[in-house]
Parts: sequence; structure tokens; C-alpha cells
Amino acid sequence: MPTTTPAFDLTKLPTRAPAGVHKDDVKREMKRIHEDLVELQNSLYAENRRSVLVVLQGMDASGKDGLIRRVFSGLNPQGVRVHSFKEPTDEELAHDFLWRVHAQAPRHGMIQVFNRSHYEDVLITRVQKLVSTEEARRRFTAINAFEKLLQQAGTTVLKFYLHVSEEEQRARLQERLTDPAKQWKYEAGDDAKANQWPAYRLVYEDVFRHCSPASCPWHIVPADQNWYKAYEVAHRLRDTLRELNPRYPQAKHERPK
Amino acid sequence: MPTTTPAFDLTKLPTRAPAGVHKDDVKREMKRIHEDLVELQNSLYAENRRSVLVVLQGMDASGKDGLIRRVFSGLNPQGVRVHSFKEPTDEELAHDFLWRVHAQAPRHGMIQVFNRSHYEDVLITRVQKLVSTEEARRRFTAINAFEKLLQQAGTTVLKFYLHVSEEEQRARLQERLTDPAKQWKYEAGDDAKANQWPAYRLVYEDVFRHCSPASCPWHIVPADQNWYKAYEVAHRLRDTLRELNPRYPQAKHERPK
Repeated sequence: MPTTTPAFDLTKLPTRAPAGVHKDDVKREMKRIHEDLVELQNSLYAENRRSVLVVLQGMDASGKDGLIRRVFSGLNPQGVRVHSFKEPTDEELAHDFLWRVHAQAPRHGMIQVFNRSHYEDVLITRVQKLVSTEEARRRFTAINAFEKLLQQAGTTVLKFYLHVSEEEQRARLQERLTDPAKQWKYEAGDDAKANQWPAYRLVYEDVFRHCSPASCPWHIVPADQNWYKAYEVAHRLRDTLRELNPRYPQAKHERPK
Repeated sequence: MPTTTPAFDLTKLPTRAPAGVHKDDVKREMKRIHEDLVELQNSLYAENRRSVLVVLQGMDASGKDGLIRRVFSGLNPQGVRVHSFKEPTDEELAHDFLWRVHAQAPRHGMIQVFNRSHYEDVLITRVQKLVSTEEARRRFTAINAFEKLLQQAGTTVLKFYLHVSEEEQRARLQERLTDPAKQWKYEAGDDAKANQWPAYRLVYEDVFRHCSPASCPWHIVPADQNWYKAYEVAHRLRDTLRELNPRYPQAKHERPK
């Protein structure tokens, strides 16, 4: 799973599992990872001193909702919160773009998942020409400072881009029209969205160029196969929690003698 | 009212009104300023496009509460909010230090007053040795980025330090012990506070060195006389609002013909 570099071309990065990686093996491995995650998350929650923020971005139909279900189901919901960022309300638009995001920052002990995030303010807004390049540059700087602030307060920030190919995206949006189980997801404009893959590619690349410092990189996840992308995210989350090595706190009171 | 410079010595700055400025003249002028403020604030609120954040800091007994009463009474309370920052709660401490502050950022149209602010996290915390110099430096950087974010979203940030002399502070804290009308303000530890003037001076000077960019300077207000400090703050606020020149919005709908 490559992290981003300044010279960055999204079309050069894989959207499918590496050769030799098989679905059955990954599914078995996922079970073990889940067991680890349950244990590590309990320790993080009990320790109550640090937190993890998982930022999920990806084009439409890249499978963010499904990934959240696959990776985070089974964890103690008391220690996991998912927040989906929708189109901003009037109240949110009457503040700076990070105001509503900061409010959702995780408190100690928590794993917070952002389904879409502050990055939408330099993505869809740019594709729709609501935000100039200069304003986007200012926002990149603000985003980097914001993520650093969170990190300095004990939050590990993990940023995943679910990298779906233009062909796969088109196929999935088409499926929403024909599959009865998926029609509820269809939104007016989905046809147009598929044609916007190249436009989104450019603004995503700009994000990866400006908001991927070594201390807080983006992880580009091949996302054409649901089983594989969930594995990569779960794997990275497990490894990150292992590095944090959260500990159950000492008892606050000595036992009576 | 000087703004701060890198080589900065608080003891060199006046704590009393300039010679030749008389209380009666200032009181008459304050009436005019208030009339202007009422009008300008109404326009700011109606315009609903920009906002003003007034940050008030000062040592204990520098007169922040009285100043808020003198300057902001009489304005439309729908467009003015005062938030007093107290000792952080457990929930607030479980987040980065700007989390609770960002939540109180003004929305468009509003004048927001901070009675104490995010600066306490690099003031009292340093005097009490809860925060290292390195951590303070990181917080200065975060504060500058935060204030810039607000400014870029249309918030004018006005920062006032109420500069009270060590002697005046001591006299006022003493008064809390003896004046029946002021005894409610007395807190355990007020005696010790008076002895901390030199320690607070040093950490305030560090703030003025690191968090006073030309785009967002601190204003040092002589604060030994209540009538004078209110005048300086009101005057600066009026001038700032005049520069913003808020306009009533155009009617949204054309009148029927």
C-alpha cells in the first residue's frame, strides 16, 4: 500500500490486489486481524489516553460504506464512532470549513471513523468550481496544521483513499440502476458522476501532493475488490494499534491491606 | 495603544491613560462610540457574511468582567455572545486544547467575546509548570494557524491584553477582602495570585512575541483605570467595524409590480 510522493500519478497505482494474493487466504487472515482489533481497541478505550482517527475518502461507489461494515463490525461500539460528513448545513457554512470537523475529533480512548471528511472541502468543491486554486492552497495549509494539532494531542491520524478504477466505478454506478438491493443508493446525477472520474483524479492528486507529510501520509488502497480493500485497511489499523501498544491503566486506588 | 513587537518589555508600557486625557471627555466620547457600535453591529448581523471575535486576556483583577459590561451593554444581544473559558472539564481535556475553543467560534453576523481564551493554555498552564517550553512553542504555532483559519473564513480577530500594574492588581485583590460588594469575587488563592505578577508577565511576553503577527496583533490596553480601558477597547472595535463596513443585504425577492 504505497503512501504518496510529490510526483504523483494516480493512474499508475493498482486498483486490484497484488498478483498471488487470494481471497480465501485473505478471509482467513481477516478473522485473525479482527480478533486482534477487538483486543487492541478494548485496551485503547481502557487506557483513555490516546485516540485514532480513520479518514476514509474515495470517489463515489468506491465502497466506503461497505468497508466500514467489514472492518469495524464486531468492535465494541462504545469505543468506535462513525461520522458521515454530508453537504454542509447553513449553520456549518457560516463558520470556517474545519469547524464542524473539529467538533467530531475523537476524545481519548476512541476510534473515530470519518466517512468523507474535511477533504471534501478541497475535492467536490474544486470539481464544482466553488473554490479557487488559491483558496485550496490556503485550505491545504489549514488542514495540515489541524491534523498536526490532533496528533500532538495524542490522536493518530490514518488517511485512506479507496482507489477505484474508472471502469469499476462506472460498472458499480450502473449496478445501482439495475440491482434491486442497490437501487436505494442511486442518486440523481450518478450518471454524471461517472464522467467526473478524470476531474476527481486531478483534485485528489493535488491533495496527495500537499497534504501527505511524512508524519501524516495518505494510504492509497486498491479498491476494485471489496474483500481486498477491507483487508488492507484492517491490517494497517491493527499494525498502528500494535505500535501504540495501549495499556490497561493501573488501578487508581491501592487495595486495602 | 501599542501593538506588540519582537523585543518586548511589558513593564515599559503604560498602565494608565496618557497625560491630558480626561475622564469627562472620554465619557462623552464613549456615548458617541456606543451609538456607532449599535448601528454597526446591526449591519454586521443583517449582512450575515462576516464576524468579529474579541479576545480578552489580562491577569486576575485586570477588570475583564467590568470591561465587557461597559463595552457591550446596550448592543443587540441577538448579535453578541460572550463565552467565559473556565478550567477545562475532563471531556475538554480529552481533546486537543483548541477543540473547545473552535466550537465557540462566531458564526457569520456575530460579535463573539472570549472572556479568557485559548491563550490560557499557554499562560496559567506555564506558570503552573503543566506545559513545557517545547509544548508551548507547538501551541503558539497551532494558535497562529487557528486564528488564520478564522480570519480566512471572514472573522476579524481582535486581541486585547488588559495591562494592569502590579501595584494596582495588589490593591484590587485586597479590595475583594474588604469591600462587601466585591467579596463574592474573592477566591482562595487570591493572595498568592498577586505574588505571581512577575511570573505571568514573562509568559504573557512570550505570547506577545510568538502570537502577534502583523495580520493578527495583540493590543496592549492600559488597564489601571476602568473608564480608560473600556474606551480604548470600544474605540478600536468601532474603528474595526467601520473598516469592515457591513452592508444590509439586498432584498432577496423583487417586489411584485
